[in-house]
Amino acid sequence: MASIPWQERPAGCTDLVWRYEQNPIIPRDLLPTTNSIFNSAALRFGDGFAGVFRCDDRRREMRLHAGFSANGFDWRIDPEPIEWTLGDEGLEAPEYGYDPRVVWIDDRFWVTWCNGFHGPTIGLGYTHDFRQFTMVENALLPYNRNGVLFPRKIGGRFMMLSRPSDRGHTPFGDIFLSQSEDMFHWGRHRFVMKPEQPWESTKIGAGPIPIETSEGWLLIYHGVLTSCSGYVYHWGACLLDLDEPWKVIARGKTYLMSPQRLYEQVGDVPNVVFPCAALEEDGRLAIYYGGADTVTCLAFAYRDELVEWLRRT
Amino acid sequence: MASIPWQERPAGCTDLVWRYEQNPIIPRDLLPTTNSIFNSAALRFGDGFAGVFRCDDRRREMRLHAGFSANGFDWRIDPEPIEWTLGDEGLEAPEYGYDPRVVWIDDRFWVTWCNGFHGPTIGLGYTHDFRQFTMVENALLPYNRNGVLFPRKIGGRFMMLSRPSDRGHTPFGDIFLSQSEDMFHWGRHRFVMKPEQPWESTKIGAGPIPIETSEGWLLIYHGVLTSCSGYVYHWGACLLDLDEPWKVIARGKTYLMSPQRLYEQVGDVPNVVFPCAALEEDGRLAIYYGGADTVTCLAFAYRDELVEWLRRT
Amino acid sequence: MASIPWQERPAGCTDLVWRYEQNPIIPRDLLPTTNSIFNSAALRFGDGFAGVFRCDDRRREMRLHAGFSANGFDWRIDPEPIEWTLGDEGLEAPEYGYDPRVVWIDDRFWVTWCNGFHGPTIGLGYTHDFRQFTMVENALLPYNRNGVLFPRKIGGRFMMLSRPSDRGHTPFGDIFLSQSEDMFHWGRHRFVMKPEQPWESTKIGAGPIPIETSEGWLLIYHGVLTSCSGYVYHWGACLLDLDEPWKVIARGKTYLMSPQRLYEQVGDVPNVVFPCAALEEDGRLAIYYGGADTVTCLAFAYRDELVEWLRRT
Amino acid sequence: MASIPWQERPAGCTDLVWRYEQNPIIPRDLLPTTNSIFNSAALRFGDGFAGVFRCDDRRREMRLHAGFSANGFDWRIDPEPIEWTLGDEGLEAPEYGYDPRVVWIDDRFWVTWCNGFHGPTIGLGYTHDFRQFTMVENALLPYNRNGVLFPRKIGGRFMMLSRPSDRGHTPFGDIFLSQSEDMFHWGRHRFVMKPEQPWESTKIGAGPIPIETSEGWLLIYHGVLTSCSGYVYHWGACLLDLDEPWKVIARGKTYLMSPQRLYEQVGDVPNVVFPCAALEEDGRLAIYYGGADTVTCLAFAYRDELVEWLRRT
Amino acid sequence: MASIPWQERPAGCTDLVWRYEQNPIIPRDLLPTTNSIFNSAALRFGDGFAGVFRCDDRRREMRLHAGFSANGFDWRIDPEPIEWTLGDEGLEAPEYGYDPRVVWIDDRFWVTWCNGFHGPTIGLGYTHDFRQFTMVENALLPYNRNGVLFPRKIGGRFMMLSRPSDRGHTPFGDIFLSQSEDMFHWGRHRFVMKPEQPWESTKIGAGPIPIETSEGWLLIYHGVLTSCSGYVYHWGACLLDLDEPWKVIARGKTYLMSPQRLYEQVGDVPNVVFPCAALEEDGRLAIYYGGADTVTCLAFAYRDELVEWLRRT
Amino acid sequence: MASIPWQERPAGCTDLVWRYEQNPIIPRDLLPTTNSIFNSAALRFGDGFAGVFRCDDRRREMRLHAGFSANGFDWRIDPEPIEWTLGDEGLEAPEYGYDPRVVWIDDRFWVTWCNGFHGPTIGLGYTHDFRQFTMVENALLPYNRNGVLFPRKIGGRFMMLSRPSDRGHTPFGDIFLSQSEDMFHWGRHRFVMKPEQPWESTKIGAGPIPIETSEGWLLIYHGVLTSCSGYVYHWGACLLDLDEPWKVIARGKTYLMSPQRLYEQVGDVPNVVFPCAALEEDGRLAIYYGGADTVTCLAFAYRDELVEWLRRT
Repeated sequence: MASIPWQERPAGCTDLVWRYEQNPIIPRDLLPTTNSIFNSAALRFGDGFAGVFRCDDRRREMRLHAGFSANGFDWRIDPEPIEWTLGDEGLEAPEYGYDPRVVWIDDRFWVTWCNGFHGPTIGLGYTHDFRQFTMVENALLPYNRNGVLFPRKIGGRFMMLSRPSDRGHTPFGDIFLSQSEDMFHWGRHRFVMKPEQPWESTKIGAGPIPIETSEGWLLIYHGVLTSCSGYVYHWGACLLDLDEPWKVIARGKTYLMSPQRLYEQVGDVPNVVFPCAALEEDGRLAIYYGGADTVTCLAFAYRDELVEWLRRT
Repeated sequence: MASIPWQERPAGCTDLVWRYEQNPIIPRDLLPTTNSIFNSAALRFGDGFAGVFRCDDRRREMRLHAGFSANGFDWRIDPEPIEWTLGDEGLEAPEYGYDPRVVWIDDRFWVTWCNGFHGPTIGLGYTHDFRQFTMVENALLPYNRNGVLFPRKIGGRFMMLSRPSDRGHTPFGDIFLSQSEDMFHWGRHRFVMKPEQPWESTKIGAGPIPIETSEGWLLIYHGVLTSCSGYVYHWGACLLDLDEPWKVIARGKTYLMSPQRLYEQVGDVPNVVFPCAALEEDGRLAIYYGGADTVTCLAFAYRDELVEWLRRT
Repeated sequence: MASIPWQERPAGCTDLVWRYEQNPIIPRDLLPTTNSIFNSAALRFGDGFAGVFRCDDRRREMRLHAGFSANGFDWRIDPEPIEWTLGDEGLEAPEYGYDPRVVWIDDRFWVTWCNGFHGPTIGLGYTHDFRQFTMVENALLPYNRNGVLFPRKIGGRFMMLSRPSDRGHTPFGDIFLSQSEDMFHWGRHRFVMKPEQPWESTKIGAGPIPIETSEGWLLIYHGVLTSCSGYVYHWGACLLDLDEPWKVIARGKTYLMSPQRLYEQVGDVPNVVFPCAALEEDGRLAIYYGGADTVTCLAFAYRDELVEWLRRT
Repeated sequence: MASIPWQERPAGCTDLVWRYEQNPIIPRDLLPTTNSIFNSAALRFGDGFAGVFRCDDRRREMRLHAGFSANGFDWRIDPEPIEWTLGDEGLEAPEYGYDPRVVWIDDRFWVTWCNGFHGPTIGLGYTHDFRQFTMVENALLPYNRNGVLFPRKIGGRFMMLSRPSDRGHTPFGDIFLSQSEDMFHWGRHRFVMKPEQPWESTKIGAGPIPIETSEGWLLIYHGVLTSCSGYVYHWGACLLDLDEPWKVIARGKTYLMSPQRLYEQVGDVPNVVFPCAALEEDGRLAIYYGGADTVTCLAFAYRDELVEWLRRT
Repeated sequence: MASIPWQERPAGCTDLVWRYEQNPIIPRDLLPTTNSIFNSAALRFGDGFAGVFRCDDRRREMRLHAGFSANGFDWRIDPEPIEWTLGDEGLEAPEYGYDPRVVWIDDRFWVTWCNGFHGPTIGLGYTHDFRQFTMVENALLPYNRNGVLFPRKIGGRFMMLSRPSDRGHTPFGDIFLSQSEDMFHWGRHRFVMKPEQPWESTKIGAGPIPIETSEGWLLIYHGVLTSCSGYVYHWGACLLDLDEPWKVIARGKTYLMSPQRLYEQVGDVPNVVFPCAALEEDGRLAIYYGGADTVTCLAFAYRDELVEWLRRT
Repeated sequence: MASIPWQERPAGCTDLVWRYEQNPIIPRDLLPTTNSIFNSAALRFGDGFAGVFRCDDRRREMRLHAGFSANGFDWRIDPEPIEWTLGDEGLEAPEYGYDPRVVWIDDRFWVTWCNGFHGPTIGLGYTHDFRQFTMVENALLPYNRNGVLFPRKIGGRFMMLSRPSDRGHTPFGDIFLSQSEDMFHWGRHRFVMKPEQPWESTKIGAGPIPIETSEGWLLIYHGVLTSCSGYVYHWGACLLDLDEPWKVIARGKTYLMSPQRLYEQVGDVPNVVFPCAALEEDGRLAIYYGGADTVTCLAFAYRDELVEWLRRT
């Protein structure tokens, strides 16, 4: 089995999170039909890695594509968008799809994404092989974005984070948690947290699948500040209770990353860093994130350093 | 058992729906503490009638009160708001409550309302006697309004209509349907309908509990038009499929009622008629609706005339 | 030939314009299908009077209907909307029509109105008998409203006033003049005037067909002020140069009428008085105007008093 | 010396504040040139009463007029607006003036109002006789409204309440206090209070001159709620510390008055009650307030009942 | 006669349109007084090329300048703005001018531009030598932008595309066509097309003068998408019917160019590519476009490849 | 005493203002805790230079830090924010602070900044040594920004420029002047100027401390234009009357600097140049300005060239 992509912290760097030096790892035009490839989810698969990628085409339609990699750095992306088999009577095919997350639970890979269903909501589906994909019921009513599953049942229930939204470039957003016994019906909704710091003052949303640690669920999430030229996306982290994950145990006051490289500051949407996936191996973390809504990037961190930093705040 | 409130169609009137001549039946200051009483739900209870009433107090806080009546016209309203027993660990007490609907299903009265839970969503609770009220999980995530249950399970599932919203005076709104096997977890969301006619061009929302007829579920719903002085609320009707109630069989093109009386045109919010409950007896309908977000009113209709009118369109 | 409708100035009244005491002359539900009848144009026809009426139906669709009257007070309105014969290849039938004006020029009655053509613009058509109506080219590009023709050619050209707009409840608006030799092609656009006084500070628009006087064209026009509860419509007057009617000779500083009666203050759009037609006979004026976007009203004035008042300002 | 206007509480009424039965006391067209007369300040003067009145003329210009009354009910208003003598080099004459307050301090009557000075701010002037008026420096920078002086120096300083605003129909507003030793230079600004209850959730502003009681300064103030048809104005009360009047001792949770009469609900701005002056005599209060931004009204209360009510909250 | 500027498609490039490698061809400060030079029109003139250039000066005033070139790459721009001779009585000089297009018809060069005339509209003028310029009547009423003439009469009439607008950064926009027999009066307005794809979902507008081909008029046009940081401008193409050019025969689903180079992504308005002129020679096209509202750029294409691509969609 | 930082005008450059070639002089992460360092004030202190710096930390909190330099180019910034001693009873500690200006008057360094006090207003404090800082009364009521003191009393009074604002990204803004005899109470407010040119059409605000010249006070100020992607900040200059500094003697029509370098065009807020301080020595000016709300930069000019340029306009 391949090791996760990794590059050591540069000498002299004291940041908790550091960027891959060859960023971006996926250029906007890896496929001849793409306008941009970003905000995508990768994880271990077989001997290597697989993922679901947000590929905006040259109509600027937002589509999901499957992709594969031997080392997690270099990716081959299917030229055709995922075709969802509708697994349930009465389902409507997605009008569009973006910002996917993928997680293995029990016996299959579950995919959540922002699904076009008379407005944005949380689409839900699964795959065994990243070739055949089956879509089930939308998890939640419109208007919602950033649906993120926990990687196992907690107290006998599936758990999902999400951000209720409106239909446009929503100027607000708190994180909630919903619970389910069957992946089809969701309830027992709990409020998790709302913006507190300036860097996240407009809205927040869950990022990669939460990472289980002895201290709690490590959640990396994005936070948005509104400048007089539009939104600025950063990301930070918090710890959620292991058994009642709607309870915030610790939360970082500062961001972990903000747009500071040209590939994060310049692109289709300037000033965006947006994480969608995190791989872990021996306490090392590889975090996939989108840059400027245009390209796909990698950053690295040590899990225990993040947890320790959160516990100290 | 008392008959439902009723007044025959006035001579010369050809409208499908006509107003009670002594409207409003509940003045804004029936209680010494109320600013207004409107958008309320009534139904049969014991020998007479009971209901849940939206009473805005003189802080303009929105509260739900229980009320009782022998004849459906004259109401006695509890001076204190409903105190919800929280029936589930982790529940938060409502920040506010408004626009309730009530329905008997199986063994108890279920109440839905617009519940303040970090933003508006659909609160859910039950009562056996309109004295003790138990709140269970919010049915849906924020931000949502106008949650309306069907009066029985369909295909083995509870069914609820609702309107996803934003956090303010939402300028859009379609009706969706959600399903549940246990009243706690909701899923299998279906799109029902969106605004089509000018009188409803801004948003629509379900009104009273749907009425079962041989032709389908008779749904009275409100529709909003935006004038250059704000929103104007009307109401109309449609027929939904008996077994798959997210399918619209027939839908009226015109409104059934628009604000045309002084008590509907003048008040805390001018130009509002907003129906929340409908009683049926021998094909006669008594419809409770709010006037100008200030008072409670009654209107009457014949069920079969409405169904016939819908089938012709 | 019938005299124009008239009622003398009430004793003690010193206003330049006074209302008909039996206002409104047309109730909102004169037809069983109408929600409201207002902002309509009347003029002499045969022995009596005819007109084009804005009738919003109970879908709240905006439609134009023809109507007839023997005395100008009591009106019979066709139950069916005007069906336009398309007089030109390539024309599209109106999506909707509202706020008509009608004028006799040379050999026929010309009708202008706010026409739905991928947005609002100035529809143009004619009739000889108020039975058959022919639509010709839209006079102007979208987005425009309040197109008003002069009652004769000036300097060999037809002349039309209009207000360029946006597509919604436009928050701005000046009056311009356009010229044509053939009623089909319009150009030589001239700026006429913009809001100056507080009562008209949001936007202004031409009202009835201008009235020729020895001192200039007497133009009655509406002006809109934005309150914290929406738009308030008033009307005032000005004098335009007889030969170069884009030049304003005199303009009243105060409004002539503001919404002060219940039928102007309460209705589908509170606080609207909107004039669309003026009849003249022996220096007496009968002015038709809409009240609260709901009903049709009459007001009266003496032409020479208005002109004298304008010349003094 | 005349008694203040008074009418006893109607039998059966339990409200703390009750309306004058012959409201409105000043109609909109008391002067032939006025569109409306409202939001005005009255106080004792000589044997009777004098005041400064907001008179919007028929251009909808906002002007201040002086007025006189023998009994406080029946008013004679100067047909001409106040002409301000500019008492200071460099002053600009008001572009407009509205919502005045008047108070006797030491040796003269001081007037504050919303003054047009490149945007709205607090104009300041004085008179000895309500014939000659002298304007001094604007008390504060734009953009500000609702400047209200205390009726005496406190701790050797003049004190003024105000509400910082923006330039339009400001959607926010807290009350602040500023201090001065000379009426020309203001500083030592203190925050007083912000909206707390739903009826005042959009903004609040000081009303009449504060009334000194043994328990503190009794301040009547207005509070605004935003409905989907615009702003709704109510008024309530609080107690401020006698020596440090930026400290709130007690504050009513409910409004004392909301728009519930036709002359408050219908007019140029529907749903407004706006108090600007309060007279006191032997513990009885006569409160002048504007209705619907159109007419002037009176309400009554007992001072000690209000204070007692505030102390209980 | 000089050949049009041209650079072959780079090896390995499969795009239909490719950029000039030395872009930008005109820097922002070619003149000492300019802030930026962009969105400009060039065409053959004499032995070489001439054009009308949008030069924003360092007041950020938008001005038109004439310019000349021997090879189409290297330009000399007049340091003074064009001075328009007013060719018609009653004309007003432009308040400002921007985004010009130029075309030879019959006997002269016609210039259209966005002209400041109490708001933006389509200015019209002509020149024989790019030294003397004569302005005639504005072609259309305000508010309009992107007026583009066809290069010859069609069916005996001049034809112009335009986009009706509002007065600011208009958030909507469809393309219309207007017709004229004399260049002074315009009518027979036709709807052409509206936004369909995501990349153009906010608004569209005609770009260079349409290019006649055997398959129809080849129209390059810009399309705008609204991101959470503002507008993003792309360009695409369509084919219009040769004889009835308001009929769309074929239309590309994807954009042909989006902002992907630093000189398109960074500048006074990030993320803009805006084409205003296209030269053709032997089936090769040289397209002049603005980058980031700051500089002038060149791109190339083969006419028949574009037509073939459009026919296939 | 050290000379001010200086670099001669590059050969061939004809601009009145030129940039330092090694810009930016302070990177965004000079401190390990900073997100950005910009919009800061520097001046002579002892043998070298001191200043107050806007340092946004990685929570994106806006804080003020002191800093020191031997040569004006290379800065050492205190890692901890300034801790204000509250010099007056009743003062509240700043919620945040940004965009400082510093000036020596009489016997101490006075600091003004945008202070968080229930919204933004002008904070005021002083220091003798840039180690101990004392805060006094806020100079003005909220909502205000860009408070700039003159470097000496004029006519016996302290003078301050400021820009009244609202609470967000204010879309308007004129410059006013306020006067004081004691630095505590401010009055005699004068209107100074409003936006006139396109580059400043949204709002303007004073920049560095005004520089006294024989011709008047030289004021460098920023001006903002709203593009379809947000605000663009430029700076220009004007001359104010020496004795009555609210009178504008001369004002440049063009900007002196606009964002044209990557470090001004790309960063947390693209397209910002924002000057806060200017040092003078023998007619040479060193101007400190912020770039892209991210870094600190230097530009240079000759005082007399600026004055001469202003006098010619």
